[in-house]
Amino acid sequence: MSDDSYQPPAVWQQPDGSGGKFSNINRPVSGATHDHALPVGKQPLQLYSVATPNGQKVTIMLEELLAQGISEAEYDAFFIDIMEGDQFSSGFVELNPNSKIPALFDQSANPPVRVFESGSILLYLAEKFDSLIPQAGALRTECLNWLFWQMGSAPILGGGFGHFYAYAPEKYRYPIDRYTMEVKRQLDVLDKQLEQHEFIAGPDYTIADIAIFPWYGALVRNEVYEAAEFLQTHTYKNVIAWAERLAQRPAVQRGLRVNKTWGPEHEQLRERHSKDDF
Amino acid sequence: MSDDSYQPPAVWQQPDGSGGKFSNINRPVSGATHDHALPVGKQPLQLYSVATPNGQKVTIMLEELLAQGISEAEYDAFFIDIMEGDQFSSGFVELNPNSKIPALFDQSANPPVRVFESGSILLYLAEKFDSLIPQAGALRTECLNWLFWQMGSAPILGGGFGHFYAYAPEKYRYPIDRYTMEVKRQLDVLDKQLEQHEFIAGPDYTIADIAIFPWYGALVRNEVYEAAEFLQTHTYKNVIAWAERLAQRPAVQRGLRVNKTWGPEHEQLRERHSKDDF
Repeated sequence: MSDDSYQPPAVWQQPDGSGGKFSNINRPVSGATHDHALPVGKQPLQLYSVATPNGQKVTIMLEELLAQGISEAEYDAFFIDIMEGDQFSSGFVELNPNSKIPALFDQSANPPVRVFESGSILLYLAEKFDSLIPQAGALRTECLNWLFWQMGSAPILGGGFGHFYAYAPEKYRYPIDRYTMEVKRQLDVLDKQLEQHEFIAGPDYTIADIAIFPWYGALVRNEVYEAAEFLQTHTYKNVIAWAERLAQRPAVQRGLRVNKTWGPEHEQLRERHSKDDF
Repeated sequence: MSDDSYQPPAVWQQPDGSGGKFSNINRPVSGATHDHALPVGKQPLQLYSVATPNGQKVTIMLEELLAQGISEAEYDAFFIDIMEGDQFSSGFVELNPNSKIPALFDQSANPPVRVFESGSILLYLAEKFDSLIPQAGALRTECLNWLFWQMGSAPILGGGFGHFYAYAPEKYRYPIDRYTMEVKRQLDVLDKQLEQHEFIAGPDYTIADIAIFPWYGALVRNEVYEAAEFLQTHTYKNVIAWAERLAQRPAVQRGLRVNKTWGPEHEQLRERHSKDDF
């Protein structure tokens, strides 16, 4: 990027060539590229996803609900191959016009309902089953504060830091510095919060923890971006302790595996259609 | 940024020098820098904000509620000078440990409650006053889908595209191309949605519209970043028509002015403590 003299043209033109690891799935337009209906299983909830952090939020949530004995939370988790463009099928776009995983179809609702954006899915499930969210008052508001905090913060971690540190075709100093500063600040926000509280939003384990763990928990456990040393994540001791507590929960361990098609074989589970699939 | 050969060090070091327009307010740590209590007014709701798009979401919401005759939505809007570090005062950090505007304190709640993140504030107010959100069912879920869509999408527009196109100290091609592609896709998502629906989440004006308008409405009305030609925003005709409809609402016009300290004088209103301040 030796382009000190770069001046954007009056009208943007889509560049040729590589935009990094995920360039083949990025497009400047939305909508379906091909006609294809989504598969549908027998469970009440139909999930279409991949085991990225946003996908893992939902599978952890569903496994936690099932661990409580809520059988209405049974789900089929179909694998969406985003590198092959499954998210641009007519069926997927009908479910989520934004073409991002995860997307949920609740065929047990009357009428059936589409739910997209991982934060919206967590809130939908928490409200539907009256679980993992405080019922009312300041604790409920605090839980939602942190749920929304995660939604607004993780694009800086994933689309910003992660992209420029780990995935971009070349290393560029300015964006790496910019996003590193903000990610360290975010980690410090969490660390101070977890110094005072056992869980993110207070004394209870909630959807705020489930939203934040797959991103920031993975970061401090050095499971994404190989950036632990660069970010000095060992200094965020309260975040690490919290993440290790969550990682010991059997439902979290199951949730992390669903729709995973990489890593050690015992961690993979391409699709999940019943509890016996693990 | 002639740094084809840049390799990040093993451990990140905070750079000297400019990080662009907002570099003086970015820090790699969180928490208070100085002891200072927030001012408190007489109204039920205490807002601490700036008329950025995230701030405008909340002031538009409050003005819409007041326009419906809901007097319990009366509010004091205090100006937070983010360029001077007001967001790092002990009082502000206590209200929002993330040190970002807007932040709301509801002193009429029992017990009083802190609300931060603009999306969380919109949802809190909608639920408290049972307004601007469908009560139940698929329409409510769709409204929340788009509210969360905005929270996850706008960091790409503001922190990504806006920063690198308008605010970064130099123009860098790669990030501009990356974020332009995604912003155009987001605009196309909205345009297709608004081709089928009068408002973002269906037939009703909701907090989804109020969340999306100050970002994407301002973009297509060429009120931020001067990027209309670059992005060819005139091609998103449904977004433009929707934004113009919203811009005609008196409550929206009032909401856009609150905590604004720049632009034409008749658009400014540094603080708002009663309806007579306009």
